[in-house]
Amino acid sequence: MEAMRSIIRKYQHKHISLVEAGVTRHRSIFNGLNALAQDQPDCKLCKPEVVIIHDAVRPFVEEDVLLKVVIAAKAHGAAGAIRPLVSTVISPSADGCLDHSLERARYRASEMPQAFLFDVIYKAYQQCSDYDLEFGTECLHLALKYCDTKAKLVEGSPDLWKVTYKRDLYTAESIIKERISQELCVVMDTKEEKEPISYLLEALRNELNHVKVACGALGYAGRDTQHILEQCYSFACVNFMTSDFHKTKKLLSMLEESDLSILYPVVVVSVHFFDFKLVPLSQRMENLMWIREFAKEVKKRNILLCGLLISYSQDEQKLQETLTQGAIIIAALIRERSLGFVGQLLVA
Amino acid sequence: MEAMRSIIRKYQHKHISLVEAGVTRHRSIFNGLNALAQDQPDCKLCKPEVVIIHDAVRPFVEEDVLLKVVIAAKAHGAAGAIRPLVSTVISPSADGCLDHSLERARYRASEMPQAFLFDVIYKAYQQCSDYDLEFGTECLHLALKYCDTKAKLVEGSPDLWKVTYKRDLYTAESIIKERISQELCVVMDTKEEKEPISYLLEALRNELNHVKVACGALGYAGRDTQHILEQCYSFACVNFMTSDFHKTKKLLSMLEESDLSILYPVVVVSVHFFDFKLVPLSQRMENLMWIREFAKEVKKRNILLCGLLISYSQDEQKLQETLTQGAIIIAALIRERSLGFVGQLLVA
Repeated sequence: MEAMRSIIRKYQHKHISLVEAGVTRHRSIFNGLNALAQDQPDCKLCKPEVVIIHDAVRPFVEEDVLLKVVIAAKAHGAAGAIRPLVSTVISPSADGCLDHSLERARYRASEMPQAFLFDVIYKAYQQCSDYDLEFGTECLHLALKYCDTKAKLVEGSPDLWKVTYKRDLYTAESIIKERISQELCVVMDTKEEKEPISYLLEALRNELNHVKVACGALGYAGRDTQHILEQCYSFACVNFMTSDFHKTKKLLSMLEESDLSILYPVVVVSVHFFDFKLVPLSQRMENLMWIREFAKEVKKRNILLCGLLISYSQDEQKLQETLTQGAIIIAALIRERSLGFVGQLLVA
Repeated sequence: MEAMRSIIRKYQHKHISLVEAGVTRHRSIFNGLNALAQDQPDCKLCKPEVVIIHDAVRPFVEEDVLLKVVIAAKAHGAAGAIRPLVSTVISPSADGCLDHSLERARYRASEMPQAFLFDVIYKAYQQCSDYDLEFGTECLHLALKYCDTKAKLVEGSPDLWKVTYKRDLYTAESIIKERISQELCVVMDTKEEKEPISYLLEALRNELNHVKVACGALGYAGRDTQHILEQCYSFACVNFMTSDFHKTKKLLSMLEESDLSILYPVVVVSVHFFDFKLVPLSQRMENLMWIREFAKEVKKRNILLCGLLISYSQDEQKLQETLTQGAIIIAALIRERSLGFVGQLLVA
């Protein structure tokens, strides 16, 4: 319970009531239904028309699927998401040999979410036996057995799979990383048309799915800015031909004020164009120090700051190569969101 | 066929014969069996006692499971790997509602690999109908139906799962990355007991599962070295209090000569201790240039080289913090194996 409470605090969830789990899955669900039925004064929820039962181990359920099972439950009394079977299902005999195999096309895997008219599923749980509560696994089966309610089966999305094995944790991590890495917001003072900038954007678009550009948009806290800060977990802040970090500092303080980084780490790459022939090396070192200091500070708020120096060459082909390399580095930093690279000054 | 040939060339596979696929899974398997039965002169294989049938989409099959199904097939005529069902299996009625659900404990998912006495499975395929060849999915079923051979069911490992959805590709990538990132080989001239080195090793052991140390072991191409080069995909080459890259260069040339990087990218981190107060900045820049040049060269051979500067401080606590940060950076480079960081000089 304490772990759940700390999650609720950390992610600032509202409209939530915690109910003690039972020793089995079905007893836990029954406890939840009882809490809803009793309309307790300290319970923020009251008896609903429809309840959704879902597994926390299926973290990627889409709103669309939730809506579908609720609508189907209103019409049929019960509904559940299903998926095609990936493997053939077989029945072993007592000696561990094949007895028979099922015709795969005639069966489905029963998944979550499932939705029920509250009265149907509550009645089913009130009537079901201790054996059901101990060993049963299927709520749809209880609705059928005790209320004669035939659940409507709704096709679920592939993302409904269950985090069961260690490998599923990798998958979950990769899916989250991909989702939050699809969109990069490029913040800059200068106009997009400027030669090297337009090429950098093109190179970034080749590396990433969505690249949004906000030109000077951080000067005021308008609607656009708000929108970006609510949606985007990756930023490249371009400081063109300047060693000033004004833009990056402004972005960092806006990110610190927003709640964006509560859920996932936010990556900010501070991009600087330098002509290595003109800028003395000591200045690079200063940049490094600046980045390291600020990175340490904002890391506490789950913001991962890195610097990227792009060597500004007069030779056009060389410049394009450098910009392509810069885009590859930005994409790698965004995709991996690794604490190991925080405060580093990379060179394209 | 050309794609398969290029894979065989690229990974230098031997003892392999390619057979044209059929339009369905069963026709492909039958083509393979026919090729084995015919003992063709240009076929490198001949009719075996036992055949294993496996799916390429289950890339993580363990030798142990292969052995088990072969032994069981020799005894029973047929054998296949099974796994517990993850979800309840249900049967929908014609109107898309729940008809009945199966008792999960009584069924298993039938997976691959499967093994058969050649004569059993070949006879089954020779007798089976066009309908079986078009729509069937289960080889064990054919052996049962046409040869009355009841397959022995062998418990498979969780890694037998099938790469079916896009998310499974993420998983496969993560599993491979984890496997080749578990072991780091630290190569160095100096003795392990030296104060900062021993602390660096301790910090690395906290970050990674296995850290092997090879002290000066690269001086000769002995058995130990050979063993390391065949097993390990991650190296940290420590150049203590020197700006010489002798050790790193030696390692790189040995890696270039070996076939190690054919299969997976090999990460090499060239670690350098510097007292920033003593070493002029221009020297850091020289290092950077050296790393970039060599990195570009060895990248062609799938070797990813990065540099890591560790600031050597007389203050013990400060030094320990820096070494911990260095270990975190090395672990991040090893885990992610990203092309984006090739040639970078990172600073701990």
